[in-house]
Formats: sequence, structure tokens, C-alpha cells
Amino acid sequence: MTSSSGDHRYVLTLGCPDTTGIVARISGFLTDIGGWITEAGYHSDPDSGWFFTRQAIRADAVTLTRDEIAARFKAEVGDPLNAEWKLTDTAVGKSAVLLVSKESHCLVDLLGRAHRGELPATISAVVGNHADLGELTERFGIPFHHVPFSPDRKAESFARVAGIVDGYHPDAVVLARFMQILPPTLCESWAGRALNIHHSFLPSFVGARPYHQAFARGVKLIGATCHYVTADLDAGPIIEQDVIRIDHSDSVADMVRQGRDIETLVLARGLRWHLEDRVLVHGRKTVVFS
Amino acid sequence: MTSSSGDHRYVLTLGCPDTTGIVARISGFLTDIGGWITEAGYHSDPDSGWFFTRQAIRADAVTLTRDEIAARFKAEVGDPLNAEWKLTDTAVGKSAVLLVSKESHCLVDLLGRAHRGELPATISAVVGNHADLGELTERFGIPFHHVPFSPDRKAESFARVAGIVDGYHPDAVVLARFMQILPPTLCESWAGRALNIHHSFLPSFVGARPYHQAFARGVKLIGATCHYVTADLDAGPIIEQDVIRIDHSDSVADMVRQGRDIETLVLARGLRWHLEDRVLVHGRKTVVFS
Amino acid sequence: MTSSSGDHRYVLTLGCPDTTGIVARISGFLTDIGGWITEAGYHSDPDSGWFFTRQAIRADAVTLTRDEIAARFKAEVGDPLNAEWKLTDTAVGKSAVLLVSKESHCLVDLLGRAHRGELPATISAVVGNHADLGELTERFGIPFHHVPFSPDRKAESFARVAGIVDGYHPDAVVLARFMQILPPTLCESWAGRALNIHHSFLPSFVGARPYHQAFARGVKLIGATCHYVTADLDAGPIIEQDVIRIDHSDSVADMVRQGRDIETLVLARGLRWHLEDRVLVHGRKTVVFS
Amino acid sequence: MTSSSGDHRYVLTLGCPDTTGIVARISGFLTDIGGWITEAGYHSDPDSGWFFTRQAIRADAVTLTRDEIAARFKAEVGDPLNAEWKLTDTAVGKSAVLLVSKESHCLVDLLGRAHRGELPATISAVVGNHADLGELTERFGIPFHHVPFSPDRKAESFARVAGIVDGYHPDAVVLARFMQILPPTLCESWAGRALNIHHSFLPSFVGARPYHQAFARGVKLIGATCHYVTADLDAGPIIEQDVIRIDHSDSVADMVRQGRDIETLVLARGLRWHLEDRVLVHGRKTVVFS
Repeated sequence: MTSSSGDHRYVLTLGCPDTTGIVARISGFLTDIGGWITEAGYHSDPDSGWFFTRQAIRADAVTLTRDEIAARFKAEVGDPLNAEWKLTDTAVGKSAVLLVSKESHCLVDLLGRAHRGELPATISAVVGNHADLGELTERFGIPFHHVPFSPDRKAESFARVAGIVDGYHPDAVVLARFMQILPPTLCESWAGRALNIHHSFLPSFVGARPYHQAFARGVKLIGATCHYVTADLDAGPIIEQDVIRIDHSDSVADMVRQGRDIETLVLARGLRWHLEDRVLVHGRKTVVFS
Repeated sequence: MTSSSGDHRYVLTLGCPDTTGIVARISGFLTDIGGWITEAGYHSDPDSGWFFTRQAIRADAVTLTRDEIAARFKAEVGDPLNAEWKLTDTAVGKSAVLLVSKESHCLVDLLGRAHRGELPATISAVVGNHADLGELTERFGIPFHHVPFSPDRKAESFARVAGIVDGYHPDAVVLARFMQILPPTLCESWAGRALNIHHSFLPSFVGARPYHQAFARGVKLIGATCHYVTADLDAGPIIEQDVIRIDHSDSVADMVRQGRDIETLVLARGLRWHLEDRVLVHGRKTVVFS
Repeated sequence: MTSSSGDHRYVLTLGCPDTTGIVARISGFLTDIGGWITEAGYHSDPDSGWFFTRQAIRADAVTLTRDEIAARFKAEVGDPLNAEWKLTDTAVGKSAVLLVSKESHCLVDLLGRAHRGELPATISAVVGNHADLGELTERFGIPFHHVPFSPDRKAESFARVAGIVDGYHPDAVVLARFMQILPPTLCESWAGRALNIHHSFLPSFVGARPYHQAFARGVKLIGATCHYVTADLDAGPIIEQDVIRIDHSDSVADMVRQGRDIETLVLARGLRWHLEDRVLVHGRKTVVFS
Repeated sequence: MTSSSGDHRYVLTLGCPDTTGIVARISGFLTDIGGWITEAGYHSDPDSGWFFTRQAIRADAVTLTRDEIAARFKAEVGDPLNAEWKLTDTAVGKSAVLLVSKESHCLVDLLGRAHRGELPATISAVVGNHADLGELTERFGIPFHHVPFSPDRKAESFARVAGIVDGYHPDAVVLARFMQILPPTLCESWAGRALNIHHSFLPSFVGARPYHQAFARGVKLIGATCHYVTADLDAGPIIEQDVIRIDHSDSVADMVRQGRDIETLVLARGLRWHLEDRVLVHGRKTVVFS
């Protein structure tokens, strides 16, 4: 895994049809503008014929502004390569909104990371469909919005959630053990920005009560999966996964308890990579330049 | 994980309905016969109401024979507890027969372990539905039986395989990347003795070409599963599983190559535990006193 | 790893010279008093000739009090076996005091676990040699004591710390990234109760700045170690260790950041096992019935 | 980890003082000669001010020969950048010689990989200071040379070993649990080509009997380290490390047995990366473009 010092950087991410000369063209451009490359990741996927890259350059060595670089890049590189690309300035802070229900472990972990300055984003707000985590959130000085959900008026509740979330213009909408299924319109509206943590090693144990499913099947490892949210339940592009060992002596309650630790870590890693523009989505899969 | 020195031991495994006093009754019995317990594992499963134990005692401290111990144990402990139990003598060697196709990695690994005296069993023979691995097997001085399979005469081929295998009276029938599905009659006949290695982290990617399935889904870890063979494909009781990390740069071929290492290890561990009577099956699950 | 439900249990831990009949004697005793064993771990160490056990029994099935059981156990089992033993009642709550400096990750993690009711203890107080973590601690409703340390008056500061800590009679004194070395008198006074988290995989990188040492050596994994504090720096009995993978692209700052996650987990596991009486110390080593 | 298909590639590895424009210069050169980049790894080390890269290009798209490319690269890129670099042609087969003593696990594993065509090299020969592994080696059709070592004539034995090894001009000299310490002259002569597998997680437990040391210290994980051999015992640049979990129930013999699996895997990975020119050494450390 690579560094993300506090230093000022421009970060370029790009995907395009693979061909010869792409690296030369991009690195030639960056050299032309005086860019000192501090990180560079490349991937050619022979399966899809697609090329991916992420590059970070030192901002202090470049005299152009981000917008000037972007304009020149579009003309000289992006358009000629038919590329999808993005150029971000690490000096522009990012923000995240968390959606929660009653489980506090991911919330406390992310609040703690933000508090010690480790998260590359501000947590703008927390929205809960239950009120339980409000006090805890507010102890960290973060606004908490309680939006009750009743089974027969979910659309209305989701509209309120969307209104609150969109008001913050977040770079990430984090479903931090949020126990409601996003409606397709929100999946669409937050595409590429909404991250979920599922408490199983997907594609095993999709849907409800994955630890109960794992217990019934008698698996010897349990896991967690951080993925982008799509309209297809638990089937979005996977960003990160990990597992821990269990054995026959572990009850469902033991799995739930031990699983929290791996859910917490997997979500924190996935969110970090998302916020640092390390994750490129292509179809149902991700390229992660971690 | 616990020791298995070369020392002479009697190993008791037992499962029975849980109640008070079981441990006292068993350990009282073992003390009565002069047994020095060197290993003891216990598990009470509140879910099924079942009790499991495995105990190893030093044989040199006991004056009775295995059969005498067994007869007394049945009367004084096994029958009163309505237990399923087994008493084995580590001085009685165990044996395994391997079923293979064309992939050599699990075969070479197990032959190597047997050669260095690490496997707690003799490999009596290897049976292949292809001839490819015959020469390699015979280099290690182990008999190889080639039983060709034609799509329209599988029953006949399986009958030949069964005849060969059963002639060795093996304690383990190991499907070491054997690419034919056992018919229900053989699953039945070898119940509790036939072990398979499946090249995925079950229950993900059941059936054919699991690495292709894993590549298509974009998972970040791949795994392997050692399980007892049942008539239900890839759904038998799981003995052992493990995973390794992959990333977007890994092609299916890379997964196949790296997956071999984890298949090899998982099968070797599962087989070792089976041969040392560390695995107790209850319903669809296992208790493993590793 | 085994369950620790909220149910009422008596937990026995015992170590004694190994001989035949110990298990029978102990389980016979437990059966006599009506004990239903829910967990039992045994270990015979041929190297030291020592026997270790931990057993949990359901309290509701026993009519005697803890003190009555203990008195009978001493006479009938403990004394005859020349055993060191302990009998605890899970209904009697445990408590911990944390010592901290400026790093918040272990503190926030443990406060979060206590808040969600996962820690098998109350956190009575936090003592810091810096004031930095006071506000954070108090947000969780836990008292914070600031005891400044000046280089030339450490003995005095430690005397104040000891006074505060001992006032709480804690079952665990947790050095949660506390950056002062305990004097021998406190190591003695808190022997078997003081746990430290060291940010390396001991015995590698003892002492100061282990991540800098790891970077200089070019290791491919970094780790953390939870151990009991003894007068011998970073050399106390190890309770738990774990590692994470790094690579050449990780700076010292990256290691520090990623290392926090493994320090946090390793300390949390070690502390949990300590509080549940799962850790038996013998000489420089531990037996952990996890 | 990245692919290494059987396809024909040129692989460039380079290290040089870091500055702007290096990537552009190299990729510009590769584009000029018609190179289609299939893999590219970059690393800038701010600590040493050094830049590292490894790039693989499709050979079929280039009309120049390797020597022609190398000549132009030297003039246009290598010399101007004051770089240390290497250009290899994957169509030119590599070879390895193994040095062994009595332990067979790494040997069998590597023979098995070579047999199934997975190792990116031919095993030219095996040299043993004991005769024990000769028969096993020869079963795989590989020449075995027995060079006895007597304590008082080691220099002479090493001279014979060197003569045999150097006769094969190997790309890798693999100390596959070879229990003799190479003299400084051989460390020098084979610098950057001699790989050792040490049976501990270095820098813990340098020297003899590391599992005994690990047992005595009571660590909870044991490991293995693959490193380049230097005159400084067990202190050469680390290529790869890994660990496995053990517990109090594991004797030294158990550690030895379980440790074999991790030694085997770590050596196989390190050797593979070395043979694929994925390992760049700088000072006491490595950059591994795995």
C-alpha cells in the first residue's frame, strides 16, 4: 500500500481502450507541465481490452492551476484516447456522510479515524433510521439526523434521507451497517459514491443474517465485503474483502462479535481507497491502486 | 494445533446428547484404566444439544489391550451415554488411496509428505481417470491404476475404481483434484472417509470452473475448501478452508497458479486431521479438534 | 474461539504438576456439585511437566455459592494437586484502568467496545501523562486523570499514577500506547494484571521506534504484540500477536498508520482473553484457552 | 500479483536517482520502438532519493532484437539517467541450481513446480552436502551432486560446490534448507543470485534452531524469510516473508512440521519473483514488483 502524505498533490485517474503509447502520452504530458510523479499505477486488462492508470504528481512543481491542467489534458490526452478521466487536487478537502442504524462499531471506528486526522475526508453528518446513535455521534461534534422509517412509508423516508445527504454534496455516502435497502433511484443518483459494508465474504451469504447462514453451513472462515451500492442487492463492484478464522466452538453471537472487527477494517480500507481516488470501476469489477 | 508425536497412543472420539457429568464419567474411566491423558478436546453445542470430545492417552501406561478397553468402555460409558464413539490405536497404521486426474500439485505434495514421514498414513495407491500422473506416482514407488472414463460408460468405470479402492481398505479416499463426480452409491459406501478438495471458498462458486467464476465476480480473495464428499455436490461437511489475496492484475491463469498452493495446503491439513481422528461429523457440520 | 455469552458462569483456572487422574478429579468434583460444563480447555506441557486447565460451568445448576465451592475445591482438589488455581464468578463485574499518552486509536477502540457492551469489563478510568486525550475520554463519561511527567521527577509521577490506579482496584491495567516505562516496583505490584501493546512483532524491534527499525530492515510484514508487563522491557509473557503485510511503497508514516489497526485488534483480543480468565502464565510463556 | 503468461516479452528493470521526466523518457523510448506495455511498476523512494521501475513489453510488436534495443536504450535512456538497468528476453530460458542438505520439503516442492511447468526456470542440478536427497532428485530426472563436508576441510568442499554450480551458469543459486554457511567469497561471487530460506520471521531468531528459540520465547506466530545471501548471516535483503499461527499446544516438533509449509511457500514465491526479474535490490532492502 502506498503513501498518502499530507503533501499537496494532483491525482489523475484514467480508463480508456488499451493501445500502444498511452503511458508515454500521459507521462509526456505530465513532464511537460513540470510534474514530478510520486506514485504511478498501471493496469492493462486483456480480458476487457481496457487500460487503467492512477498517477499522483507534486503540485508544488507545477505552475498551472488544476483547471488549466485539466483543460490542456482534455485536449491533448483525454479526448484523443477516448478516455474517462478525473483530475483531483488533494488540497480540496473531501467529505463523507454516514448512514447508520443501531450498530455502532463502524461508526465509532470512522469517527475515531476522523478525530485523529487519519481519514482523508471530513465526516459532514450522520443519518440514522433509528435515534440510537445520535448521542454518540454528537459527542464527536458531528451533526446527527434521525429519519424514522415506517414499513409503509419508506419512499418518503428515503426522500428525506436523500434531501439531507445531498445537501452536504458528499464525495462518499457510507452505509455503515445501515439496515435499509436503498431504492434504485438512490443507487442511481449516488452511483460510484455509495459504499456498503456487507457482513459476509460475498458472493457467499447474500442478503439477511449472513452470520446465521455461515453458522448453518459450518464454514471455517467468516468475512466482510466493502462494495459500491448498485440496484442489484449485494452485487455491486467489490472494493475490498477480508476474512477471519472461526471454529466449531463459535456460536452465531461469537461470529457477530468477531465479525465486527473485520467489517470495521474492511470498510475503513475501502473508504480510504475510495476517498484517495484509488478505485476505478469498470463494469462489475474494480481496479484498486492501493 | 496440537502435537502428534510418534508416541503410542489410544485415541477416543465420542459424540452424544449433552448432559451433566459426561466429562467426569469419561475421565474417570480413563483414570481407572491407568490412562495418562496427553490431549483432550471438548465441545458442547447448545444449538444441537450435542456433546463432542476427543482424548488421547498414553498407551504405555495402560495394561489392557485396545479391544479390552473398548469392551469396558462400551459397557461403562458408551452405552449409558447413548454415544457414538471410536477408539483407535495409533500403533495400527492407517492408509489412504488417492484419486487423481491430470493436475499434479496435490499429488506431489502428498507423496512428498509421505516420503518424509510426515503423513500419518501410508499411501497405498493412486487411481487416475487419465494416465498422465502414472509415471510420477510410480517414481515414488506407489502403485498407479489407470481407469479410463468414457462419458457413456461412467458407471462401469466407477465400479472398477470402487473395486480397486476397496481392495486396499483405506481409511481415507482422497479426491486430489479428481475431476469426476462420485455417484451416490460411492458417496454412501465411502461416507465419512472420502475427502474432496474444491478450488473455491465454499459456498461461493460451487461446481465447474470456480476460478473463472471468481474472476468474473471480481472478488479480492480466492480460496479452497476440504470437505467430506456427500451426494450433494460441494455441499458436504467442511473440514478446512483458507484463502489468499489476489488483485485486479491477476488473470484466471494467475488465480489457477496461485490457487494451487492454497488447495495443496488445505487438503493436506484436512487429510491430516481426518487421519488423526480429529474430525467429528454431526449433520452437515464438523467439529475439528485441531 | 469460544463463546462468552452473558450467561452466569463459574470459571475455574488451574495449573499444577502433571500426573494421571487430574481431569477425572476435577471433573468429578464439578459433577458432584451439580456443575454443567459449558467450556473446557486442557493442556499438558511435556516440556515443563505442567498441567493447565480452564473450565466454565453454568452457575444456575449449582446450589453452592462461589465461596463454598472454592472452600471445598481447595480441600478436595487444589491442595492435593499442589495447584495454583482461581475460581471466578462471571456475575461479579470486572474493571480496567487504561494508561495513555497522546495516541488515541487503542483508547477509542476500547471505549467503543465498552460502549456497545462488548468488553467484559467496565473501564473505570483513564490516566494520561499528557492531557490530550482527556476530552475524548470524558465524552464517553469516563473519568480522566492527567498526571504530568517531568524527566527528573518520574518516580513522583509514577507514585501518583499508582495511587490513582490502585484506588480503582482494577482487574486489568492496560498500557494503551502509554509511552513511559513502568518502574520495577509497579511491574511487581501489578504483576499478571498489567498488559502492554508493543508496536512490533516481538522479539523483533524491541524498544523505541519499532516502525523505523522495521523500515530500515526492509521487512515485508509488520506486527503488534500484547504481553504482560514485567521489569524486563518488552520481554514479558506474550498473550497475542498478529501481523499485516506491507511492501516497499510503504513509508514509515504508512506503517504507523496501518500498524494502528493491528495494534488495536491485538490489544483488544489480549485484553478480552485476560478479562475472561483465558490466559494462564507459566514462566515466560502463556497458555491461552481462546 | 501480476500475470506471467507464457507469451514472449522483453522485461526492463531500472534504478536511478529520482528526478522529473524519468517515466516519460522511458515510456517514450518504449513507444518509439513499438513497445506495447503489458505490465509496469514504478516506485519512488523519498528516503533514498532513488527511482525504480519494471516494465514488460510484448516482443511480437517490436522489430528490433534484444541487443539492438539494449544498445539504443543505453544511449538514449540508461546513460543519461545514470541508471543501473537490465533488459531480459523471456524467450531465453533461465536456470537454477539448488543446494540442499537432508530436509526434502523445499526440494520436492520446487521439483513439483518445475515438473508441472510452473517454475519460470529449469532446475539444472541439485548439490547436496549429504547424499540423502540424491535418489529423490534423480527420480525427477535432475542430476544430483554429492559433495561431502568435513568440519576441517570446508573450504575445499565449498570450492567443489562452486565449481559444480558455476559450471551450470545458473540465474539462481537456491539454498533450499542447505545447512552450511556460505563463505564470503561465494557470497560475493553469487551476489544477487543466491537466495536462502531462513526458518524464522527475521530479524527474530537469527542463526541456529529458530523454532527452538521461538518455542522458548512463546511467540504466537512463526514465520519464514526468503532473502538474498550476503556475508552478514541472515541479514541480506529480504524478498518475502510470511507467518502462520501457532499456540501453546504446539511443541517444537509441531512447529518444525508446520513451519515446513510456510518455508516452502515463501521460498517458492521469492524464487519466482527473482526469476521473473521482479526484485530490485537497493542497499539492504528490496523493491518487489510482484
